[in-house]
Amino acid sequence: MVNSTSLMRFVQPEVIARRTNSRGLQLDPTVLLRHAKRAPKLDVLRRLAGRSICEHTDVSREETIELCRLAALMEANDVAGHHPLDGKLVITAFFEASTRTRLSFESAVLRLDGKILSVPDGSVTGTAKGESLADVGEMFNSYADLVVVRHPETDALRELATGLDLPIINAGNGSGEHPTQALVDWFALLKWRPELADRNVAADRKIHLGIIGTPGNMRAVKSFLLRAVDFAPAIRKLTVVSEMADPFGNVLDDADRLGFEVEITNESAPVLPTLDVVYMNSIALLGDSYHLLGEQYQLHPGGGLRPDAVVMHPLARREELSTKLDETPQNLYFAQAAGATYLRQALLTAVLDRLERLPFLTAE
Amino acid sequence: MVNSTSLMRFVQPEVIARRTNSRGLQLDPTVLLRHAKRAPKLDVLRRLAGRSICEHTDVSREETIELCRLAALMEANDVAGHHPLDGKLVITAFFEASTRTRLSFESAVLRLDGKILSVPDGSVTGTAKGESLADVGEMFNSYADLVVVRHPETDALRELATGLDLPIINAGNGSGEHPTQALVDWFALLKWRPELADRNVAADRKIHLGIIGTPGNMRAVKSFLLRAVDFAPAIRKLTVVSEMADPFGNVLDDADRLGFEVEITNESAPVLPTLDVVYMNSIALLGDSYHLLGEQYQLHPGGGLRPDAVVMHPLARREELSTKLDETPQNLYFAQAAGATYLRQALLTAVLDRLERLPFLTAE
Amino acid sequence: MVNSTSLMRFVQPEVIARRTNSRGLQLDPTVLLRHAKRAPKLDVLRRLAGRSICEHTDVSREETIELCRLAALMEANDVAGHHPLDGKLVITAFFEASTRTRLSFESAVLRLDGKILSVPDGSVTGTAKGESLADVGEMFNSYADLVVVRHPETDALRELATGLDLPIINAGNGSGEHPTQALVDWFALLKWRPELADRNVAADRKIHLGIIGTPGNMRAVKSFLLRAVDFAPAIRKLTVVSEMADPFGNVLDDADRLGFEVEITNESAPVLPTLDVVYMNSIALLGDSYHLLGEQYQLHPGGGLRPDAVVMHPLARREELSTKLDETPQNLYFAQAAGATYLRQALLTAVLDRLERLPFLTAE
Repeated sequence: MVNSTSLMRFVQPEVIARRTNSRGLQLDPTVLLRHAKRAPKLDVLRRLAGRSICEHTDVSREETIELCRLAALMEANDVAGHHPLDGKLVITAFFEASTRTRLSFESAVLRLDGKILSVPDGSVTGTAKGESLADVGEMFNSYADLVVVRHPETDALRELATGLDLPIINAGNGSGEHPTQALVDWFALLKWRPELADRNVAADRKIHLGIIGTPGNMRAVKSFLLRAVDFAPAIRKLTVVSEMADPFGNVLDDADRLGFEVEITNESAPVLPTLDVVYMNSIALLGDSYHLLGEQYQLHPGGGLRPDAVVMHPLARREELSTKLDETPQNLYFAQAAGATYLRQALLTAVLDRLERLPFLTAE
Repeated sequence: MVNSTSLMRFVQPEVIARRTNSRGLQLDPTVLLRHAKRAPKLDVLRRLAGRSICEHTDVSREETIELCRLAALMEANDVAGHHPLDGKLVITAFFEASTRTRLSFESAVLRLDGKILSVPDGSVTGTAKGESLADVGEMFNSYADLVVVRHPETDALRELATGLDLPIINAGNGSGEHPTQALVDWFALLKWRPELADRNVAADRKIHLGIIGTPGNMRAVKSFLLRAVDFAPAIRKLTVVSEMADPFGNVLDDADRLGFEVEITNESAPVLPTLDVVYMNSIALLGDSYHLLGEQYQLHPGGGLRPDAVVMHPLARREELSTKLDETPQNLYFAQAAGATYLRQALLTAVLDRLERLPFLTAE
Repeated sequence: MVNSTSLMRFVQPEVIARRTNSRGLQLDPTVLLRHAKRAPKLDVLRRLAGRSICEHTDVSREETIELCRLAALMEANDVAGHHPLDGKLVITAFFEASTRTRLSFESAVLRLDGKILSVPDGSVTGTAKGESLADVGEMFNSYADLVVVRHPETDALRELATGLDLPIINAGNGSGEHPTQALVDWFALLKWRPELADRNVAADRKIHLGIIGTPGNMRAVKSFLLRAVDFAPAIRKLTVVSEMADPFGNVLDDADRLGFEVEITNESAPVLPTLDVVYMNSIALLGDSYHLLGEQYQLHPGGGLRPDAVVMHPLARREELSTKLDETPQNLYFAQAAGATYLRQALLTAVLDRLERLPFLTAE
């Protein structure tokens, strides 16, 4: 086992310096490493080998935390020279175009020296001409080692998996989930306050979490919330600000057993000054069409946010998140985005069973 | 020359186990190797260096058989570590989008450590704005080492070749041909029954081949049929089931010299119980538009197929091929698809003159 | 410092032979090297490390000349084995599709063993859904090491740069510039007549340069002209043939200080027999729409061109440039296109600070 002191040998200050976001709060991955006081647990991470990551339940609390620690190491260290994914092929099958998410995964694969088969726009695939997703899955088996899928329909992953023997990573399925976005979100939060990973968080360090949006029909918000439940010991209260009467839909059916207080409101102004973390998103899926967050929920400086509060957003944003927040220390969203490729590097290395190629997991 | 015994040294059982199709008949590439009793003929394969593969006549019977044997070796052995296409660039220029075929070629190139310049959708190229294909060909010369082309127009390859000094591989041109699909098809058939490659096939081992579709306007069917002529000594009879009175069009003008009986019918029911192999496809090109196979030719379990018959399909499929056949041993189409990247790996290595990088061709 | 004699050690005749254009004038890169009588100046090229190349002023006359000499070396030598861009990631973000330019950059990156994140068609990116270019720039920071951008709007680069910490290479922005095309153009001219790089060009070796088109609204023409000013000592006269009364627009406000005579005319016939070099293009941007060059300016054999004159065109072409010129020695445009990837290889190696990986710059 690598201990905390020897782990710091792998931190390359020039790598960290190079890779920060241009504006907003800067997150230091070594804070997360120092708090852990040990290397990521190799035995926990090894369990992810060959596993599909489709829903939040596919990654446990413990696995989430170890993945974030591994991602912090990858953010602090240039691993390209170790070619962790050498010889591995990943298909990025985006049946719904998303340049941000596709390039994030592709960058992660290429930084690790894996290779990419890219389907940037599913509207030009055989499925557009009537081929079933089950047949597409069967086809993928002989082409690659892992498939990253984004699809506008919630049921698409299940159909694709019918014929697929490879692990799938869900990069967003309709009004379903976006589980790696949630891992990215919590990676940012754990770098911000590493004690959120502890079981015994002091009462005055627990956070009041605010969500502006509707978990029931916003998949990134839903995935963030489902992952938040894992960190209940660090949460004092959750407030959901939504124009919907029942913003949860089917999410969190047993909200009363969460271990923290839950509040629902349709006004953001009174709530904002009480929040430690504000999570928001722009797009909701209503039936078959997309719907933008209501105007009354726009966030901007002077809106009552506490100076030490942080704002998260999975991006892309529209009008709901003012660019005037970009230069403030409440802007956690750029650091959140900047960490995405490291979290995905960690996940891909684990699922593709190449952890032993990383020097910091096996060195003495 | 590597003999059959030493050849088996290169078979890696864990590689074969990993790479089979999920359902249907499983094909073992070593059967083909054992039947050959020798290594692929290097001198025959070397002839393919620098050659364009546009029509069926661009690959001879002997070259087809040796390519299939090389592909079987590549299916049984992980060659990535030998980097056969290191430093080679391949353009996949799909002026007609086809994710299945494009990814098949790209996977083959990447598995051999070559690099890809991808044109996934020709509707966004300069030709859409009025540039001639001859000028596109001239442009490609300095970009890459080989060009894989799919185009909706039959004459496109000839125009592209005007300015092109690189070898072209035709991945489907209008109502023309799809020669690598035919190689893929026969690779599956030779793994199924390796004696089909022999000149002296016992009368009771010759096959009755059925084609449901119209060779005259279905390019995959046409290419399969043109390649089948090379295997005439193994064919007892060919039956073409089509709603067209003259399903051959210009294909096989001298059908009476084929060396096997040819039958044309527009009813599939009476014929099915007599067939050893059924080849079908879904799409025909009629003038400028695509046309689906008629409903009366749908294939499904209980339709009269013999238990030991096999069904082939180049995929993608529509309604004509029931998914209920997927779980049956008559399903050869998934194994056929699974073999595609290996056949293309063999072809690319030969055309790009990198055979000497493969350990099994040069070892003693 | 490498001297001219030892430099010739790096010239691989078989590499040069392989890489010429199929038709038209053939350009020999060693002519440029022999004229220079020395290796490219490493200290000059090193200045380009980390620099964005958005406008013509981002590359000086001296840097242009040294880049062309480096490109000549790369054209004469197979550098792939030195992996100059190993571990580097380049985003090709084409918000306006252009297969020719995109593949040219991607080929350059891949030949040097860099990796590509490709956005072939910006109409499927987040910006199409309303994301700002500043946010796209912020996103790119953590994905790659350099961004190549084509955009239909002139102001796009400035907006993208707001959030971007990586160097940008402008691959064409609206009616703005296309600075690497101009480098490609002058790379061809310097291979054609290396003394154009000299300060003291004999009067009878100075060239009469003709431009058929409108620098004010044709970005490739504009960039070529702006770069031409650097080579004023080698230019006797410039004639612009245009249907516009003021073809320069805002370009060259101080045309009277250029150091060579400038003539404007709307008739090409009288001028053609006097020209040494004819530069033309097909497309002008007028407001928001594209406009083709007028019919009266079509160039074809027998149109009065001198036998030793050369025709340049950034391609793609339409009707304005007859294919009948392709087989003539006046066709410099195919050689111009063939050199594009080498010039871009040189530029990418310099901007990404990997010059020391090239054997010919550091060998003794």
